[in-house]
Amino acid sequence: MMPKGFKYSAVEAAIKKPGRLDLALIFSEAPAVAAAVFTTNKVKAAPVLLSMERVKNGSIQAVVVNSGNANACTGQQGVDDAFETTRLVAEGLGLPDEEVLVSSTGVIGQRMPMERFRAAIPKLVEGVEGGTLDDVARAIMTTDTFPKLETRSGSAGGKVYTIAGIAKGAGMIMPNMATMLSFVVTDAAVDKAWLPKLLKDAVDSSFNCISVDGDMSTNDTTVLIANGAAGNAPLRPDTPEGEEFAQQLRDLLLALARQIVKDGEGATKFVTITVKGAASTADAKVTAMAVANSMLVKTAFFGEDANWGRIICAVGYSGAQVQTEKVDICFDDVQMAVNGQFAGGDSEARGSAVLKKPEFTLTIDLKQGEGFATVYTSDLSYDYVKINADYRT
Amino acid sequence: MMPKGFKYSAVEAAIKKPGRLDLALIFSEAPAVAAAVFTTNKVKAAPVLLSMERVKNGSIQAVVVNSGNANACTGQQGVDDAFETTRLVAEGLGLPDEEVLVSSTGVIGQRMPMERFRAAIPKLVEGVEGGTLDDVARAIMTTDTFPKLETRSGSAGGKVYTIAGIAKGAGMIMPNMATMLSFVVTDAAVDKAWLPKLLKDAVDSSFNCISVDGDMSTNDTTVLIANGAAGNAPLRPDTPEGEEFAQQLRDLLLALARQIVKDGEGATKFVTITVKGAASTADAKVTAMAVANSMLVKTAFFGEDANWGRIICAVGYSGAQVQTEKVDICFDDVQMAVNGQFAGGDSEARGSAVLKKPEFTLTIDLKQGEGFATVYTSDLSYDYVKINADYRT
Repeated sequence: MMPKGFKYSAVEAAIKKPGRLDLALIFSEAPAVAAAVFTTNKVKAAPVLLSMERVKNGSIQAVVVNSGNANACTGQQGVDDAFETTRLVAEGLGLPDEEVLVSSTGVIGQRMPMERFRAAIPKLVEGVEGGTLDDVARAIMTTDTFPKLETRSGSAGGKVYTIAGIAKGAGMIMPNMATMLSFVVTDAAVDKAWLPKLLKDAVDSSFNCISVDGDMSTNDTTVLIANGAAGNAPLRPDTPEGEEFAQQLRDLLLALARQIVKDGEGATKFVTITVKGAASTADAKVTAMAVANSMLVKTAFFGEDANWGRIICAVGYSGAQVQTEKVDICFDDVQMAVNGQFAGGDSEARGSAVLKKPEFTLTIDLKQGEGFATVYTSDLSYDYVKINADYRT
Repeated sequence: MMPKGFKYSAVEAAIKKPGRLDLALIFSEAPAVAAAVFTTNKVKAAPVLLSMERVKNGSIQAVVVNSGNANACTGQQGVDDAFETTRLVAEGLGLPDEEVLVSSTGVIGQRMPMERFRAAIPKLVEGVEGGTLDDVARAIMTTDTFPKLETRSGSAGGKVYTIAGIAKGAGMIMPNMATMLSFVVTDAAVDKAWLPKLLKDAVDSSFNCISVDGDMSTNDTTVLIANGAAGNAPLRPDTPEGEEFAQQLRDLLLALARQIVKDGEGATKFVTITVKGAASTADAKVTAMAVANSMLVKTAFFGEDANWGRIICAVGYSGAQVQTEKVDICFDDVQMAVNGQFAGGDSEARGSAVLKKPEFTLTIDLKQGEGFATVYTSDLSYDYVKINADYRT
């Protein structure tokens, strides 16, 4: 089931290589409320700058997205191009410009091929009667190997609502957003004033808990649009129905985040890193991220080497409060290190067996307090290097 | 020419694979002053813990070093083993235990094979009449592909002195030290009270300005021993001769640091990254390091792709004060980006030509102030992944 009142379109505009969808549209037939979270990178792409302004009023009816060109580091020309793109879409849909967001992903520093946008946007708008959200999910892919789409449903005041979300990831995935685009639509009615915090909290516990390579992009964007077509009374915070919706949204974003890690460039392993017993939640997160981002740890995962020494080394330089002689490390249920030392016995063989699996959990207990965090990451493989050495060529 | 009054030895103790030197000794015949800089990782190996204590009194006559086992995360047993190693060497040389430092590099979390140390140390001490510093440089190699040795000479009060230094690096190279060992000996007499600061400053402008993979090890150690055999009056700070010595020392450590980067695991490029116009020196350093540590930038270097977009992206998330529209980026003398935008013309072709060279300079001008920093880094290649995926196997 998909949320009511949304339409989709995707076309080939020749921004990417021929034969691939690269321009897409999400459109709510009725006025809708919206919120968005953007990259914290100080170098922000033109569509991010424009969309940040537009989403402030909380009312958005359409999003136009392209892949193949990030429209980043393109100066005033880039802002003008982003503006023109939204204007063309707004004209086609009969909307005010301000109701249209724009999002881009791809190569940085190249001018947008605007003649291709101008040629393609009429087709894009026309196609909105026949498209699907899956088409949009395909059109925003760059080095992604599969489209990412999740749906969740719930009810409020007897009205059933649906949330549907798509995402693209692959490279440059890191907390505080990354070259990561995600668009979420729902037919639930949601209190407009709550929407920004609702989305920010959900992003913090999902997209901000994954890391593929520690890079953070210029274009990261997550947009949530709620059009109220389900007919419920607007959901509010601190109510059971509001909390249920928030939980569904978190759950959906986390599912998308996990798919992004699984589809990380060259990834062969999906690793859940849980840090417990940290002096604080912040310490737990910083520890988990230091381990997740360590190139030595990630290559050991790829090599299926139960090298807990590299893990404790990353724990040591994370900056968190650590006492070597208290650190426990497990792969799944196999204890590799106890109180900062090798657990001995057959743990090496059993730990190596865990690492042969495509998915496993690394648990680190610091025994300093109650701080807890979970992050998701992938390994570092030959293919990561290959994909990124050859990306533009 | 080598510093007077030092002797060296290196043997095969079977700590590493057969047929490789893995245990070495540096010995000053006369009492000497010494200082050392150690890893800032909170997880410190046993030899680091012991040597940190010993060097405090500023008097050291011998250093025993092994490769193949880091003696890290080995608990009280590891400290006992480090202690025993120094005791065996001290007995052999007829020194008090306190005059002997110990240093280890290799796999983390495995007990030291003490029976091999006990069997080998007598041979090691005996060999001190016939060894060279080059032997020691070879014995401390792990995944290094060549030994690293540099010498510098100068004079003070008419007396000629020499400084000789060796280093190992390869993986886990990152500011604030890394799996990096360096031992520097000089026959200059140097003021004992000055020595710690002298060494720290030299390390800050050399080893702390390189990055191979952003990991920081449990065992990093740089030791400087000065035995005064040149016969000069002790060199002091804020004197012309003291400053000349400090400059020679910095120059020697920087040469070793550059060799470490060139021998970075799998490295095919040597890249000098200079950031200028930063709001502060700290901002310049943090920017240069963010770029140096970006996996996307490093894979682009490997792919010889003049992808300045990834560079400006890393600049943006570095945390430094940045205005996109002011950033200039050059590869050698080819301007790739001007005021945050593509420089246009034939810069793409010319930039790509620069990246085909084995060594080049990346210059980033932030135009925010006077802050300046230079760091040295390598690319990220298939071989980095291969070496680190297979390291223990």
